[in-house]
Amino acid sequence: MSSRQGEVLTIPNAPPSLNPFFSLACESMPTKLYEGKAKILYTTDDPEVLLSYFKDDATAFNAQKRGTITGKGEVNCTITAALLEYLEGQGIPTHYLETVSPTEMRVRAVQIIPLEVVVRNVVAGSLARQTGLPVGQVLSRPLVEFYYKNDDLGDPLLTGDRLQLMELATPEQVSTLQHYALQINQHLTAFFNRCGITLVDFKLEFGLDAQNQIRLADEISPDTCRLWDQGETDPERRVLDKDRFRHDLGQVEAAYETIRARVLQAVTSGAAV
Amino acid sequence: MSSRQGEVLTIPNAPPSLNPFFSLACESMPTKLYEGKAKILYTTDDPEVLLSYFKDDATAFNAQKRGTITGKGEVNCTITAALLEYLEGQGIPTHYLETVSPTEMRVRAVQIIPLEVVVRNVVAGSLARQTGLPVGQVLSRPLVEFYYKNDDLGDPLLTGDRLQLMELATPEQVSTLQHYALQINQHLTAFFNRCGITLVDFKLEFGLDAQNQIRLADEISPDTCRLWDQGETDPERRVLDKDRFRHDLGQVEAAYETIRARVLQAVTSGAAV
Repeated sequence: MSSRQGEVLTIPNAPPSLNPFFSLACESMPTKLYEGKAKILYTTDDPEVLLSYFKDDATAFNAQKRGTITGKGEVNCTITAALLEYLEGQGIPTHYLETVSPTEMRVRAVQIIPLEVVVRNVVAGSLARQTGLPVGQVLSRPLVEFYYKNDDLGDPLLTGDRLQLMELATPEQVSTLQHYALQINQHLTAFFNRCGITLVDFKLEFGLDAQNQIRLADEISPDTCRLWDQGETDPERRVLDKDRFRHDLGQVEAAYETIRARVLQAVTSGAAV
Repeated sequence: MSSRQGEVLTIPNAPPSLNPFFSLACESMPTKLYEGKAKILYTTDDPEVLLSYFKDDATAFNAQKRGTITGKGEVNCTITAALLEYLEGQGIPTHYLETVSPTEMRVRAVQIIPLEVVVRNVVAGSLARQTGLPVGQVLSRPLVEFYYKNDDLGDPLLTGDRLQLMELATPEQVSTLQHYALQINQHLTAFFNRCGITLVDFKLEFGLDAQNQIRLADEISPDTCRLWDQGETDPERRVLDKDRFRHDLGQVEAAYETIRARVLQAVTSGAAV
């Protein structure tokens, strides 16, 4: 493909922020580094910085169910940016740097630790299915659970012994993840309470940066949190997260939009900081 | 149904040892207390004693696969009796009392703790599937795992936190189960080594007797253990347990018979005690 000066180029595999106004002169060619179920990571000029693009694609039940939630990429990018900035302000190291378009943020390049760290305040989802405990039971203390981040194996739950056996992280790293997870839970629970929302449970991913420091990575959004409207008691109507998509409850987009609006309001009113 | 003196009666729902020579005068009517996938429990005259009848029925994958292993009831009753007697001799309290027919043993009535306690020495089965670790990897130390004994929920693996949360046993009981499990593993590993067999992993169930003492219950057999012939290196030929049935490897009965013969030889030669 030849290019003429001043011509607008569309680059295959390039992130949206570089199309259609990309100029070859200003940046080296970005490369798609990794495409996940909800985001795409691109390289940038700086090897320590990546561009994270949030997609509208939605998956559930280990990608057995697939669909699209219109506007999700934008909503989740906005919510994630707001929450990571908030957590950074509370002393939690995160990968977040800045938002560069409605669906894209620049993040520090980290090597993802292949663990999904789940914090639970209220019984729901697989905890309810696997224990028989009733959905909605408030836990006397938050539960931190580790799952092996491995789609082929179905992201299985790990016991402490399995975690140690598999050597996916050092015991010190696991202890740090546990500590951060509980701290993040305290901060996010307080934040969402101010939004009139119960933080039921959520999934975190962490990575190691170039200095080998553990940083909160990935996203925090209705895709990765269970969020219940405190103003609703109906077990379906209160749901403001991906469970609306998982269980075909309808009004998925509206729920995501509600979360964005309340999060932004909490941030701009300053009540959250 | 009327009865005449001296006539042989066949009692519906009675254990085989009471049919066809049952005399109504000698014992009160036995009642089927519980029918599981591999055994039936009957009441006896003594409320602290039950009769356990071993069936030929075989199930796998949470009873999604069903079949019959001819003679299994007899083989597993014999093996279980020998191993429980051996463990009792090593100081492990068990529910075993005596064998009363080829397929039946008298056991102490216990209230089963709804936990499956699995001990693993070598990676196999769900541990391999859920961790990606290679089948056959020897663990540096035995793994004791707890599963919620609940067919409807698919006997899910429990983390330490879930175990505590669900209150299926007190922390002291869990600690006792862990201790017994490791002791039993030492004794059984030594026993099977003398049989030329590697004890890969096994499942135990425990119960509380009338004095609230924890006793090893259920069975120990090729249904509940993974047992590999040390004289075979072929990953299929070495299998001498229910995996032959699970994975359609053939010669299921022969494998069970091999275990019975080697266990009995170890017991009668006295090498095991």
